[in-house]
Amino acid sequence: MDKLKKAVVLVSGGLDSVTALAIAQSRGFDCYALSVDYGQRHYSELDAAKRVAEAAAAPLKILPLDLRTIGGSALTADIDVPENETTGIPVTYVPARNTIMLSLALAYAEVLGADDIFIGVNAVDYSGYPDCRPEFIAAYQQLARLATRAGVEGRDMTIHTPLIDLSKAEIIRRGIELGIDYGITVSCYQANGEGRACGVCDSCRIRQEGFSVAGVPDPTRYV
Amino acid sequence: MDKLKKAVVLVSGGLDSVTALAIAQSRGFDCYALSVDYGQRHYSELDAAKRVAEAAAAPLKILPLDLRTIGGSALTADIDVPENETTGIPVTYVPARNTIMLSLALAYAEVLGADDIFIGVNAVDYSGYPDCRPEFIAAYQQLARLATRAGVEGRDMTIHTPLIDLSKAEIIRRGIELGIDYGITVSCYQANGEGRACGVCDSCRIRQEGFSVAGVPDPTRYV
Repeated sequence: MDKLKKAVVLVSGGLDSVTALAIAQSRGFDCYALSVDYGQRHYSELDAAKRVAEAAAAPLKILPLDLRTIGGSALTADIDVPENETTGIPVTYVPARNTIMLSLALAYAEVLGADDIFIGVNAVDYSGYPDCRPEFIAAYQQLARLATRAGVEGRDMTIHTPLIDLSKAEIIRRGIELGIDYGITVSCYQANGEGRACGVCDSCRIRQEGFSVAGVPDPTRYV
Repeated sequence: MDKLKKAVVLVSGGLDSVTALAIAQSRGFDCYALSVDYGQRHYSELDAAKRVAEAAAAPLKILPLDLRTIGGSALTADIDVPENETTGIPVTYVPARNTIMLSLALAYAEVLGADDIFIGVNAVDYSGYPDCRPEFIAAYQQLARLATRAGVEGRDMTIHTPLIDLSKAEIIRRGIELGIDYGITVSCYQANGEGRACGVCDSCRIRQEGFSVAGVPDPTRYV
């Protein structure tokens, strides 16, 4: 039997990234989960990332990178998380977050000898984030080809975004097919220490609507 | 008088980045220095970065990001630094380093409201590093336009690489014109705690040749 191809999967502990991980595994990749401890307010995300990686039997590396040093987002600085923000770029946008995450994934992939990276970005529900747009991913793909040893050696680094065109409900349906227990994930921007969700922030609202539209019982633990 | 435009300048404490900083200032930018404490062996680099920023009167932010967690380079893992490595990608190459550095600079620029980033990459002496090539920088430029709030708002983020086509001797001559005291910089891959250079690693060798070809006395403090 052929050895499985390695892939790095960015895992935040939320609904999207756990689904990206399950899809990567369903496509036959030997997945290495990477989480970044960027000083996010919702630290219970990282506990969720651990549960997610364990449930998927994927090794997890947690990289500390304190973006609070840089600031500029409601998720990393002392700015209130809004309950309903509908126009423009949300204050929960973390400056250059996906650019940074993908760069760290690229470094990890290079060390592992992996030529594939999965990220659970989604352009439908997060169209306000510049770094969730398909044109951003296309530009990153081009960069990744040039940025690494693999590129110099004639191999191609591929950035996979299996969720990019899916609605939240479609992501949930796909995940349920793949056997995901979404009860272990945390999407809330201000989950408490036990990982219980607030139920009112943007992320909670989008997630609730997703379960509702998908016709799937919401397993989220709320405060 | 117009307010100066802000720029983020990646400063390592080495010869190249101090020159990039001086060039950015000479072009009229209000410069914010950014150093990354990536667990480099040559920690005295960061002391040099502090001296360099202070001499240039530029505020310095040091961002901790321990790339030893990822490994894969002689500069961050337990691999010997070679004395003479002439073909292929050097083992001192840190996987995706410039991609990561530029991503952090992008985040910082976004928070500062700066549309300009300076990085002292050089394709002449470091042609073995994939992420020092002009085509890598061009791809990053394209990415930076799409990755940030500035891009969405129709402003352009520019990556400046004033040293990219210069030889080490040309960099030194330009720096001397701008009044740089290279004695405060550290380029050595394995400088000691006092910032004294080994004189034998690749980086020392390239630097020594640079001073020699430039016809400038080498102010480096050696062990």
